[in-house]
Amino acid sequence: MLNTINSPADLRQLPRTQLKPLADELRAFVLDSVSKTGGHLSSNLGTVELTIALHYVFNTPEDRIVWDVGHQTYPHKILTGRRDQMSTLRQFNGISGFPRRAESEYDTFGTAHSSTSISAALGMALAAKTKGEDRHAIAVIGDGSMTAGMAFEALNNAGICEDVNLLVILNDNDMSISPPVGALNRYLARLMSGQFYAKAKNVGKSMLPAPMLELAKRLEEHAKGMIVPATMFEEFGFNYIGPIDGHDLDSLIPTLQNLKNLKGPQFLHVVTKKGQGYKLAEADPVLYHGPGKFNPAEGIKPAAASKLTYTQVFGEWLCDMAAQDKTLVGITPAMREGSGMVKFEQKFPDRYYDVGIAEQHAVTFAAGMACEGLKPVVAIYSTFLQRAYDQLIHDVALQNLDVTFALDRAGLVGADGATHAGNYDLAFLRCIPNMVVMAASDENECRQMLSTAFEHKGPAAVRYPRGSGTGAVVEKILSTIPMGKGEVRREGKGIAILAFGTMVAPALAAGEKLNATVANMRFIKPLDIELVKQLAASHDALVTVEEGCIMGGAGAAVAEALAEAGIVKPLLHLGLPDRFIDHGDAGQLLAGCGLDGEGIAASIVQRFGKDQPRLVVNNA
Amino acid sequence: MLNTINSPADLRQLPRTQLKPLADELRAFVLDSVSKTGGHLSSNLGTVELTIALHYVFNTPEDRIVWDVGHQTYPHKILTGRRDQMSTLRQFNGISGFPRRAESEYDTFGTAHSSTSISAALGMALAAKTKGEDRHAIAVIGDGSMTAGMAFEALNNAGICEDVNLLVILNDNDMSISPPVGALNRYLARLMSGQFYAKAKNVGKSMLPAPMLELAKRLEEHAKGMIVPATMFEEFGFNYIGPIDGHDLDSLIPTLQNLKNLKGPQFLHVVTKKGQGYKLAEADPVLYHGPGKFNPAEGIKPAAASKLTYTQVFGEWLCDMAAQDKTLVGITPAMREGSGMVKFEQKFPDRYYDVGIAEQHAVTFAAGMACEGLKPVVAIYSTFLQRAYDQLIHDVALQNLDVTFALDRAGLVGADGATHAGNYDLAFLRCIPNMVVMAASDENECRQMLSTAFEHKGPAAVRYPRGSGTGAVVEKILSTIPMGKGEVRREGKGIAILAFGTMVAPALAAGEKLNATVANMRFIKPLDIELVKQLAASHDALVTVEEGCIMGGAGAAVAEALAEAGIVKPLLHLGLPDRFIDHGDAGQLLAGCGLDGEGIAASIVQRFGKDQPRLVVNNA
Repeated sequence: MLNTINSPADLRQLPRTQLKPLADELRAFVLDSVSKTGGHLSSNLGTVELTIALHYVFNTPEDRIVWDVGHQTYPHKILTGRRDQMSTLRQFNGISGFPRRAESEYDTFGTAHSSTSISAALGMALAAKTKGEDRHAIAVIGDGSMTAGMAFEALNNAGICEDVNLLVILNDNDMSISPPVGALNRYLARLMSGQFYAKAKNVGKSMLPAPMLELAKRLEEHAKGMIVPATMFEEFGFNYIGPIDGHDLDSLIPTLQNLKNLKGPQFLHVVTKKGQGYKLAEADPVLYHGPGKFNPAEGIKPAAASKLTYTQVFGEWLCDMAAQDKTLVGITPAMREGSGMVKFEQKFPDRYYDVGIAEQHAVTFAAGMACEGLKPVVAIYSTFLQRAYDQLIHDVALQNLDVTFALDRAGLVGADGATHAGNYDLAFLRCIPNMVVMAASDENECRQMLSTAFEHKGPAAVRYPRGSGTGAVVEKILSTIPMGKGEVRREGKGIAILAFGTMVAPALAAGEKLNATVANMRFIKPLDIELVKQLAASHDALVTVEEGCIMGGAGAAVAEALAEAGIVKPLLHLGLPDRFIDHGDAGQLLAGCGLDGEGIAASIVQRFGKDQPRLVVNNA
Repeated sequence: MLNTINSPADLRQLPRTQLKPLADELRAFVLDSVSKTGGHLSSNLGTVELTIALHYVFNTPEDRIVWDVGHQTYPHKILTGRRDQMSTLRQFNGISGFPRRAESEYDTFGTAHSSTSISAALGMALAAKTKGEDRHAIAVIGDGSMTAGMAFEALNNAGICEDVNLLVILNDNDMSISPPVGALNRYLARLMSGQFYAKAKNVGKSMLPAPMLELAKRLEEHAKGMIVPATMFEEFGFNYIGPIDGHDLDSLIPTLQNLKNLKGPQFLHVVTKKGQGYKLAEADPVLYHGPGKFNPAEGIKPAAASKLTYTQVFGEWLCDMAAQDKTLVGITPAMREGSGMVKFEQKFPDRYYDVGIAEQHAVTFAAGMACEGLKPVVAIYSTFLQRAYDQLIHDVALQNLDVTFALDRAGLVGADGATHAGNYDLAFLRCIPNMVVMAASDENECRQMLSTAFEHKGPAAVRYPRGSGTGAVVEKILSTIPMGKGEVRREGKGIAILAFGTMVAPALAAGEKLNATVANMRFIKPLDIELVKQLAASHDALVTVEEGCIMGGAGAAVAEALAEAGIVKPLLHLGLPDRFIDHGDAGQLLAGCGLDGEGIAASIVQRFGKDQPRLVVNNA
């Protein structure tokens, strides 16, 4: 039957009795598809019925669905004409793992970072009102995403828009990537367990003498619906419905049909189960959150031991440094697994803080702790630090507080694509006074840099990429490197390549080809200006290489240093170009940007000639 | 009596009966002081009693008070040893208008941007717990600041910390700088009006037969405190007390004393009045929010018509463009007055959106509207755009949506100091693909650039400074400038000064002195590369000048363009140094950074010699 559904219009032709078998087919398709490509699984198994119900009841794409985070949109993609493309998911030139406006008219808003959906859907709903168009805007948001402040900002704004066609669906599956934390989650659990209602219902009974119970009962009947405390969402001005079973199409469809006819901001609380229908994923939704390829009949097998990832290097370092220094505290905005903090939490539960999907709070919370003499380490993906930029500037750097930032997933990230790429951190961090910014060239240096950042009395960031590196042996000792000092890794002639972080290895390969000098600069800030001057004095041209945007990045720092020193020297900047780079294999993508050894060498030859730098000063 | 209080310890020696007269003296002192220096008034008149009560009850500085935003801390500064320094408030080398850790041990956390206090205080409270220190951490936050997401992130995190000594005081004065908006404010108004409690109390009465009223009454007595719906703050895990009168020391002091003995997260709802005790400010707290000098007996007099401010230029442009294009919508995160949108709201109420102190939401909300074909203009201070950096990247630029950013207060801002300076926008915006970034050199060009940004099909930002400019006549027509094109403003010899935005005027002055060429570059991105090449070809050296951080800024863009083009040329970057710059007169501060005409000329002479550029290529 699924093969006959090429758009939601086809779906809407089906009698309701066919939807349940369709859901079963769709679930099986998702499982089969993800097991072949890898991707997000648990969350997609959890949204099968909700997706069918939404497209069945609402007139998509005229009605707009905005999927928060968007990694749960595989059923949506399958039902909106992309069934056959699922085999290309997250691959180069294939479809994205997230909604993309360029990919389909059913993808009304590109998502990937959490908690944007209510803001976007409210904008769409108010735009429809402004333009006199009668359409619905629907935000589907998970309970984890609800903890981020911007979701509340949006609720606060939406709640006063009395005549707007906005429906917020809270997809409550009691789990973000890490187990959920915080008061909101406890509150939702109370709502779901029904204790909330029960509490109001039973009030007044306990102390009454027996004969009065009848009266109390009548009073209670009356009181119900009157005293039942408003949910938080009603206090925000929404009409709250729920919780209902998000896997029961017989609940979902009539409820959505009713909601479709109501005006003003509506809030539907749906309860789903991550991994629903696949026992292994139900039992361990974290393991099945974002698996690689696997055999569905057998489940995910423990991978053979492979090279350490940078994430693991960080996790080990955090435990070792915490054992040595009792003032270390570890902070994560809901990325315990992704950031490699599982072991730290087990070993040091009192110094582990998962603050929820709340990057802004995470950074200022760290600043507060630093004021009291603790030494917080904030583990955060480069791309998510963008969420806490003001807090880093205003609360940490301006006060020169001693906070260490461990920036995972710096540079290109591969399958997750442009939304998750950490391409801008060098540019947006180095312009902030008091910041120290380092980029690790291998696993052992990553550990050294983390120690260096931690020992430095002030804010410092260490960036490292997704996955593993050169396979360098990581020493057990906790050693530091000299502040602001790079190192020459290869002595050559004519050309000096100033490489940052992950680009040291391909720069060395290029250096071999061209007999060029290669320096591992280590520090983006403070830049090793003495080394820059030395290299300028002893070479004909300088080449900078970084896995980050060229604009304003580490290469620009070198250019500024040369200008500051009054040095005029041919200069070539290599790095990521000024465009968003789609998903695909990270190595291939880097090569596509000319950032492998071959590409670096080719760019140098193209600019400076093959045998010897073409040193004609071009006056344009 | 105030003269005898040199620290909170002195205050704590007073008998309680003396506190009311002290409050009267303190209020008079604040009024007198602010009328002489300018500064924030309404908010400080509103916190006189709360400040006295906090320092009287708590053992400051051992107990930590974090003042959200911090512009209400004048009474706090006066009572903590800075009474005599109030005459230097917000002046060069004087005390800051905000709390600063460097200024006093009583200023436990530097604030200025809103909504950071709960995060910081929670960090302090948990640090005290970790270190085994018995102290309280207190966040004082206004109702406006409560609308920002990060306050909710912090509440969500704090509510589960059951044994933490954290007190959050909501200073509810029903007003942020702009009138408050949003569902939370309505909710607080309901709490304050008592309807909330009344509703619960009267339930069950209306339908009962008369004889049962006595029973109902007993039941009601019992039900009180049981059925009363939990406030939102209790749902977040806090113990909620309030609302109480924040001007009544006889309520405040016993309540704080009781709260001091309770464990776990406490929430005190205090109601105050902005401008309390000064009739003119009570009547118009917005006018008296941040006045200049005035005569307290006469009040603020309408200022004589002076030069148009950039803010006014923006406000006029917004109205004119809205009249021409019905798809324009204007969005502000709670800065109607500061951003010059009062007239726009009056003329186009249906296209005006004040979303609350919610920069993140503001930008993604604009993205949602742009998806539907509206053309949003987000008016935001440069420094506050830092709060929405991820939303600008991920929701606007990545999707190449047509959103115009009007960045007020770019560069140094004067009396508000480092926290409010907009020094980083050029660096953090230009590295983002798809962005267009312009800097206005005068008022008329600002209007042209706004039109250019608005007509451009994609994200574009126009930055302009606080206050007025050169006094250029602003044309009525809505004209644009060519995309990515600068202009030569003065033809000279030897040196070409490439000036951006506000630096065009002083660069012209320097150009006169040195007979240098001066270009108004207009665009930071796309940079006018042809013009850069031309100037490089016809001059011996290039000098870039910007009112922004040198690191990664517009000058770096020129350096990158030269490297990209293979042009080797002596280059000097002038701009803001790599440090946070304190408060003071903006003109003086700029001169201090060498960014007036004299300073620019001096820097050029110092680098290149007096008569003719010293063109020795320095190979270090």
